[in-house]
Formats: sequence, structure tokens, C-alpha cells
Amino acid sequence: MNPYQAPLGEMRFLLEHVFNAEATWQGLASLEGMVDMDTALAILEEAAKLNRDLVHPINRPGDEEGVGFSEGKVTTPKGYKDAYDAFVEGGWIGLCGDPEYGGMGMPKMLGVLVDEMGYSACNAFNLYGSLTAGAALAINAHGAEALKAKYLPKLYSGEWAGAMDMTEPQAGSDLRHIRTRAEPQEDGSYLVSGSKIFITGGDQDLTENVIHLVLAKISGSNSLSLFLVPKIAVDDNGNLAEPNGVSVGSIEHKMGLKGSATCVMNFDGARGWLIGRENKGLACMFTMMNYERLAIGIQGLGSAQAAVQMASEYAKERLQGNAAGSSNAADPILVHGDVRRMLLTIKTLTDAGRALAVHTGKQLDLAKFAEDEIQVAKASRYVGLLTPVAKAFLTDRGLDITIMAQQVFGGHGYIRETGIEQLVRDTRIAQIYEGTNGIQAIDFLGRKVTGDNLATLKEFVAEHIEVLSDACDKANALKAGFAAFTEVAAWINDNKLTRPALINAVAVDMLDAFGYLLYGYYHLLMRNTAIAAGSELAPAKEAYCDFYFAKLLPKAEALLSAAKAGDELLMSLPEAYF
Amino acid sequence: MNPYQAPLGEMRFLLEHVFNAEATWQGLASLEGMVDMDTALAILEEAAKLNRDLVHPINRPGDEEGVGFSEGKVTTPKGYKDAYDAFVEGGWIGLCGDPEYGGMGMPKMLGVLVDEMGYSACNAFNLYGSLTAGAALAINAHGAEALKAKYLPKLYSGEWAGAMDMTEPQAGSDLRHIRTRAEPQEDGSYLVSGSKIFITGGDQDLTENVIHLVLAKISGSNSLSLFLVPKIAVDDNGNLAEPNGVSVGSIEHKMGLKGSATCVMNFDGARGWLIGRENKGLACMFTMMNYERLAIGIQGLGSAQAAVQMASEYAKERLQGNAAGSSNAADPILVHGDVRRMLLTIKTLTDAGRALAVHTGKQLDLAKFAEDEIQVAKASRYVGLLTPVAKAFLTDRGLDITIMAQQVFGGHGYIRETGIEQLVRDTRIAQIYEGTNGIQAIDFLGRKVTGDNLATLKEFVAEHIEVLSDACDKANALKAGFAAFTEVAAWINDNKLTRPALINAVAVDMLDAFGYLLYGYYHLLMRNTAIAAGSELAPAKEAYCDFYFAKLLPKAEALLSAAKAGDELLMSLPEAYF
Repeated sequence: MNPYQAPLGEMRFLLEHVFNAEATWQGLASLEGMVDMDTALAILEEAAKLNRDLVHPINRPGDEEGVGFSEGKVTTPKGYKDAYDAFVEGGWIGLCGDPEYGGMGMPKMLGVLVDEMGYSACNAFNLYGSLTAGAALAINAHGAEALKAKYLPKLYSGEWAGAMDMTEPQAGSDLRHIRTRAEPQEDGSYLVSGSKIFITGGDQDLTENVIHLVLAKISGSNSLSLFLVPKIAVDDNGNLAEPNGVSVGSIEHKMGLKGSATCVMNFDGARGWLIGRENKGLACMFTMMNYERLAIGIQGLGSAQAAVQMASEYAKERLQGNAAGSSNAADPILVHGDVRRMLLTIKTLTDAGRALAVHTGKQLDLAKFAEDEIQVAKASRYVGLLTPVAKAFLTDRGLDITIMAQQVFGGHGYIRETGIEQLVRDTRIAQIYEGTNGIQAIDFLGRKVTGDNLATLKEFVAEHIEVLSDACDKANALKAGFAAFTEVAAWINDNKLTRPALINAVAVDMLDAFGYLLYGYYHLLMRNTAIAAGSELAPAKEAYCDFYFAKLLPKAEALLSAAKAGDELLMSLPEAYF
Repeated sequence: MNPYQAPLGEMRFLLEHVFNAEATWQGLASLEGMVDMDTALAILEEAAKLNRDLVHPINRPGDEEGVGFSEGKVTTPKGYKDAYDAFVEGGWIGLCGDPEYGGMGMPKMLGVLVDEMGYSACNAFNLYGSLTAGAALAINAHGAEALKAKYLPKLYSGEWAGAMDMTEPQAGSDLRHIRTRAEPQEDGSYLVSGSKIFITGGDQDLTENVIHLVLAKISGSNSLSLFLVPKIAVDDNGNLAEPNGVSVGSIEHKMGLKGSATCVMNFDGARGWLIGRENKGLACMFTMMNYERLAIGIQGLGSAQAAVQMASEYAKERLQGNAAGSSNAADPILVHGDVRRMLLTIKTLTDAGRALAVHTGKQLDLAKFAEDEIQVAKASRYVGLLTPVAKAFLTDRGLDITIMAQQVFGGHGYIRETGIEQLVRDTRIAQIYEGTNGIQAIDFLGRKVTGDNLATLKEFVAEHIEVLSDACDKANALKAGFAAFTEVAAWINDNKLTRPALINAVAVDMLDAFGYLLYGYYHLLMRNTAIAAGSELAPAKEAYCDFYFAKLLPKAEALLSAAKAGDELLMSLPEAYF
């Protein structure tokens, strides 16, 4: 296998032509002068080199060795510390961080591409930095000035790491059942006690300190508040002081992500500070959730891209069977229609997935940086609509893609040393954590689509789909598809009050239908843009678009049929039938 | 988790009502008097007990420990030997074996159900017996009388094991490239030399001897012949003599099936005996392939059933969130529509899969035991048509099902100790080995559907689908679906000569479309049969049938759309696009 190569040409094409990055950045006061295409491309090239030369080489060995845990200490696999040091030295954790506290202030539509590379190179390793960036985001959005000044520079620099502590054994998707308690102290701090599970990067041996963001209930309250709880206390000068009652109970043994420490965390009267307001912890979490959910979507995208690359390479090298009429002893398996079907399926899903990631990143940037309130509000609505799709559809398709890529390898795909099976195991979790994909779908259909009686959906379709040329068959197919989707959504909206189980029962079918339609839009957009720009990519983009519309888009209709069947088929059955 | 419980009620319903087992057996001279429903049910109950009490308990520990390899010796995980001894003591390996050589002569439509239990209880363990039964089948079909008398009783009894040695590094799907050679000796034996990879059960510490069936080329020939090569030579009295130049080079480290030894086998002038005729090795392999492919399909079914059971149990116990209007602190997650969607999806796919397995087993029995030549020929055609579907569709859906069951577990599904992730890893290989599912699809569409210009397909549809009541919406939907399938198949048949890449390019879409339609037929059949029999299962079968037709059957149409797109979209693209 060749080393990982970032798809820089695709990335550049999306930024430069499809999503007009430079014009977008020039129109935003906070970004103007800070980033242009040249800067962006230089950043992408640097990230590509780092991930190829330093991160990807630790991916396979780290899976074999896994994380260690002994006498309360977590150890990461060999090579992780060196790669981490190089990674933070480049300032990558603070790439999209607030410049006021040492972040680089780069736009998210660039950040998503860097993140894709990190996940392609090594799912497990990239999570450490991703969690830190997520924690920094929450602190920056809701923390008091003193907390920001004290913690953000160390998080952006990677000197300290961040972790999100939400889940407890009895409180997973349903956080109401959290039992961790916070006792208010006279100095304004809190003493936090309780146990958390499934804490990614809960501890490690890469950084001196870990800054935990802990969801807990203030004594006497049944609502959730968010607390910053450092593993090691930090004194007024920002230096490390004494241990803070935060310890690792154990680490989980998992299907994959073996280089990432998934910890049981115990807080024994650990001193913490409130982030945001009392009893408003969930609101604070939601602020960062759009970013984190997109980041996890990109785990699916990064795995997909790595899988596409491996399968494509294997298909060109592996000799078995013959093309029709060939007189060779054997041809590369790329000559077989079924192998081509698999490669084009995973390639077209991955390319459209990257477009979705950049598009969502762009809306996040507009929502954050635009000065026009109307523009900010609209971008925020689009972020809301696209984010659950990005999280769920990128990770569901991500797993499909890694599995299909594994199939291209035949028996060799089942052998560990080939590496493709690791991608399947590593990326599987992305459909589950940061809100299961079922939860994403309910958020999508219940809050984002029907929550405003389809207003945002219709606005999105009007702006993106209805403007497509009427002279194009594919555009008409998309218009019909989105119209059918809107019709089913309207039916759900009309019935949601009288049939309270309806949204939950059909949400996944609806999210998937929307996802397949949206990917059709991105393929048509990429095709049209490439042609209009006279890009050398145009013939390939046309071919991918043709393939996607003929072979994959029909799934949307089947999913809408399934959704139209409603909830009674499921909800009326007695427990014994399950 | 509760111990594995075989779905005996479902199995009985299929045999007794859906596929009229007793009447079928009474109509076949070789089976009449040997097996009736009471015997069959007693066998199923015994198998259920064995797999629950002895086999399932070694499943998780065997995955953790894995197979060992040291100084040329393979060791199976702790507990395998005890379970194996109990397994062979019951005569299970010879269940469907030839009574003349010590087999029990039971019908395959019963055997598939026993095999399902074995794979549900432990994928890795069940393979050892399955390979032995497969090897015995090939020897019985094509071996000389002396070989049969010498080897079959020891294989049926499980005293010795069997292995199939086909793949070499350069010869996987394309067996023409096999390099293993056989030198004819004066005594009629051959000396076999070469190296084989991916040999399941190539060696182990469960049996004293392993009987290898090796595909090799006789010196001077470029065609394949099949040889029986024992690990330890067997003298004229059937006693073990000296080692026979058969050794294990290494074992593979795999994604799953860690209790199953996947060996590199070296043959260094190992003495072997021809099975069947010189240069007709592939024909001998094909005889057994229908059985082996069905057996691997059943690996997918067994994994699916285990996953259904685990997910169903978890969904009834795990408390998170609330049903609409509930005032409980929390309800079991079974109250959520999306969880019900997942459970019903995996349950209805698994139930229909079992029907496909029994139906295929019944056709194998008719082809083997019927005396009427016309009946034998028809059953053989149906075996040909159904077998690639059973292998590919049962294993593809098997993986889907284990993954969806894992999703029901949320974060706990990713943790090894829960056990559900092991099912995903163990069953993944079934889509690859014994002919990849792409190869199955090409066999299905190229040989079975278009090979006789749709004659068998039309015969099958006329006998099974066209006879359904015209007064039933679902029957009409199936008729329309199969008619649409036949129409696309006819178009492919008409164009297969002028477009030689067409079949390869659309085969998987066509097999999947047929599979979804066929599952619709089985659901309608189960529903109608349950009602007609006044079975207490009738209301549940109606509910499953409704669910399947509304939520899953629409996939068939999307797949036919994809197939209709043809091959040019894929075949016209230059290598650089991949």
C-alpha cells in the first residue's frame, strides 16, 4: 500500500469553484485579509504532508498495540506522543480557534478539509485533537472571561487536552438521568462528584493536563449544568498545581479505535467552574454540538476517503480474470464491471460527502462571521438543517463505503495487515457517538424540518434546487425528488400532533431520502461548476454525476415510500412480536 | 445477556406448514420411514440444547483468546476441544451424510436449521464441522469406492476433519492461476506440491487427522484436478501411519472468526489420490459448491438470528426516554419508533432468510432423493437459481442485520464484552469466501437467469408467484415486481452478446432486486400459510408481512432502476477516473 495521499485536487476544486471560498471570505470582515486561496492551499498542503508522513504511519501499529491502562495511568500506543508533539507544534488544534486567545481564526470550510485528512490518516489519533478543539469551542462560547484567558491558549496550543463528559451508565441518549452532582462552594467554584462512561480521551499520556467539560446537576436541582473540571488544578498564574480528584476507573475494550482511550472517569469532589448559566448546561452543549456533530460526520468522510484510495489502488494492481476479449494471462480487477460499480459507488458517495461537509462548514462560517443579521439567521437555519444530515449521512455512508472497499479486496480484505478492515472497525462508532444517527434523524425531522412547519426546508430547496436549469433532465429529476420529499414532510407535519410517534418512526427514512437527494444536488453542482469553469475535472465530474443519478439516486424514492408507510405498522404491535 | 435460544417455533412452522416437510419426506423413497416431523423436532431440540449449553459459551472467550500457532502447531481456544467432542459424539457432522458410510441420511431442509443454530451459537466453531461435512460430500459424490470406505466414516464421525484447499496468492476468484502441482506415481497416487492460502480449518488440535481436498494441476496439464491429501497417511487398515508432507506455514490474523484457524498450507510431495477424473477438478468442486454456498449463506442467517435475539432482548431491558404520554421515569427503548423500525427490519429479513434457506434445502433434497427424473431436473434448476441468492443475499443481509442490531445497543454495542460487535466481525467474511458475493451475482445472472434464456426464472415465477391470489394487493405487487424483474432480465439477455460487460456490471443489482422480491414472496407465503393453518402465529406473520411490503420491498424497484442503467456508465470510463 502507498502512503495516504490527501485528495488536494478535489479539495481545491470545492473551495475555489464550487463554494466560492475566496469571495465568501472577502465578504466577511473577520476573515478578510486573514485568509485567501493561497493561504488556504498552503495550509492544506502542509496538513497533507503532516498526515501522510507522521500520522498515517502510526495508524496500523496503534491498532495492534492499543491503549494501555495500568495503575490508573493511560498509555497511548508507540509513536502517538511524537506525532502529537509535531501536530500541536503546527498549531493545528487552534486552526479554527479564536485569535484573541491564540487560535488561528481560520474558517470552518477550510477546517473540515484538514479534519478529513486527519481522520483518513488515523481515526483514533485525530480524535484527541478534535475533542480538545470542541472543548475550547464550548469554553469560548459560554465561559467567563477568566476561564477563557486561563484555559483557551493552552488548549489551542495542545499543551492541555479537552474532554466531554456526558454519558453515565443510566444516561446515554437520555441525559435527564445524569446523577453526577455539583456542590456550590463559597468561592464560586463547585465540587463535582460522580462517574462518567465512554469518555473519549478522558486521559492519555500526551498532555500534562486534561480539561473536562462535565454535565452535572447542582445539588437541589434536576436540571443540567456544565462545568469545567481540570484533571490537575491550575493556579492563578496558570501553572499546574495539585491533582483535582479526577481519576480513570478503567478503559473500554472496543471493536476499533484502539488507539483512542475510552475512559470511565471518576470525579471525587473535583473542583470545577460553571460554564454558562446554572441549569443551562444543555444549551451550552448545543452551541458546540453543531461543530462536534459535523466533526464526527467528517470522521465518516475521512474513513471513506481512505477506503476509496486503498480500494482504487488495489483494483489497479490485483490481477484476476480478464476483460472481455483480453488475451492477457490476467487483467487488473478494475476491468470487471462489478468492481467498477463498487469503486464508483464509494467514490461518488465520498465526493458528494465532501461537498456536504464544505457546504455545512461554509454555513457555519456565515453564521459566525457575517455581519448582516438576516444572513446570520439564514445561515444558522441552514446549519441546523444540514448538521444532523452531515453527522448521520456521512457516517452511515462512511461505514457502507469502508465495507464496500473491503469487498474489493476479496479475502485479503479480511486480513488485519491489509488495513482496510481496521477502517470498518474504526469508523463504526461514528454512527453511534455524539448522538446516535437515529437521534440525528429525529432532530432533523422533528426540529429542523417540521419544527418550523417546513419553512427552512422550503427556503433551502428554493435557493438551491428550484433555481436549477429547467432544460436539464437531472435538474428536473432533483426538483421532482425534493418536491416529493417536501410533500411527505408536509404530511408528517400535518399529522405530528395527532400521531406523536410518527416522527420517531420515519425519521431515519426521511433523513436518508434527503441525504441521497442532496448528494444528487452536489453532483450536479460539481458537474455544472466544472464545465462552467472549464476545469480539466469536467469530464470526470460528468461521468460521476451520470453514475450517481442512474445508480444511487433511485434509493431516495424507495426511502420516501418507506416513510409514507407511517408509524402504525410499527407502533400497533405488541411487545411479543419483537 | 441470556444464553442463545434457538427459534424452534419459527423452525417448526416453516417445516410443518410452509414447506410441508412431512409430505415431502413421505414422497421420497430414501427418506420415507427414516424421518418424520417428530424425529425432526426431536433433532432440532437436541441441537438447540447442545448449541445453547456447550457451543455458545465458548463463543466470546474464543474470540478473545483466538487460535494459537507455535512451532508448526495450531491450537484452538480453551473449551473448543470439549465442545467438539460433545458435538461429534452426537453424530452432528454426519447429519445429512450417506448412511452407507455412517451418515444419518437426514434431509437438507432439516440440516440447514441445525446449521443455523451452530452459526448463531458460534460462527468460528461451527465452521470446523461444516468444512468436514463439505469435504465428505465431495468425496462421496466423486471419490472411488476405496476412498469412500476409508475416509467417509471417519469424517462423518468427526474423528477426522476435512478442509478445502483452493486459493493461492495469485489465484483467488480466478482459479486458472493455480500453481500447485501433482506428479502421477506408479501406484496410481500423486505427489502434490504447492502452497495454499486462506485454508479454513487447515489444521487444528481437535482431530488426529485432517483430510485436505486440494485443487492442483497434474504435471503437463493446465487444467485442474481434485486430490484427497491426508495430513497423516492412513494405512490399509485405516490406521494412522506417517506424516504426509503437509504442514502449516502460518495462520492469518483476521477481523473476526478468531477461533477458526485460517492457514497457509504447504504441500511438499504429499501423497494424494485423485477425486473424480483427471482435469475435471472444477466439476467435482461444483457438485459440492451448491451445498457449501448454501452453508455459508446460513452463516449469515445464523449470525442474523443471534443478532435479532440480542437486540430484541436489549431493547426490552434498556431504559432511555419515554413513550408519548408516558409518566414513567424512563421506558424501555422498545417504545421508540426508530428502535421498532430497526428491530422489525432485522426480524423480517431474518425470518424471510430462514424461509429461503429451507426452500433451497428442500430443492436440494428433491434433486437428490426424488425418483422422477423430471422432478429431479426441475429441482436441480431451482437449486441452481436459488443457491447464489441464498449465499449472497443471506450474507449481505446478515451483515446489515448485525450492524443494525449493534446500533440498537448504542455505545454499548461498540464495547467488546457486549458481544454484538463480534457478530459483525465474524459474519463479515461470509460475503467474501466461498466465492465473493459479486461472483455469486454473476453466476446468478449469467448462468442461472440468462444462461437458459430465462426459462428457469419464468418457470420459478409461474410456479410460485403467478399462482398467488389475484384478490390480494400484496400478491399483485409481487406479480408486478417479478414481471419488472423479468423484463429487465430479458433486456439483459437480449444484449449480453453485443455488450459482453453488461452482466458483470449489473449482476449485483439484479441479485439484490430478486432477493428483495423473493423475501416478499416468503413473507406473503408465511402469512397466508399461518392464516390457513389457524396458527397462533398468524397475527404476527400478518404484521411482519405488512411491515416488509411497506418498508423494505420498495428497495427492489430502486435496484431494478440501477440495473437498467446498464454497463456503459461504468465501462466507458478511463482508469484515471477510478
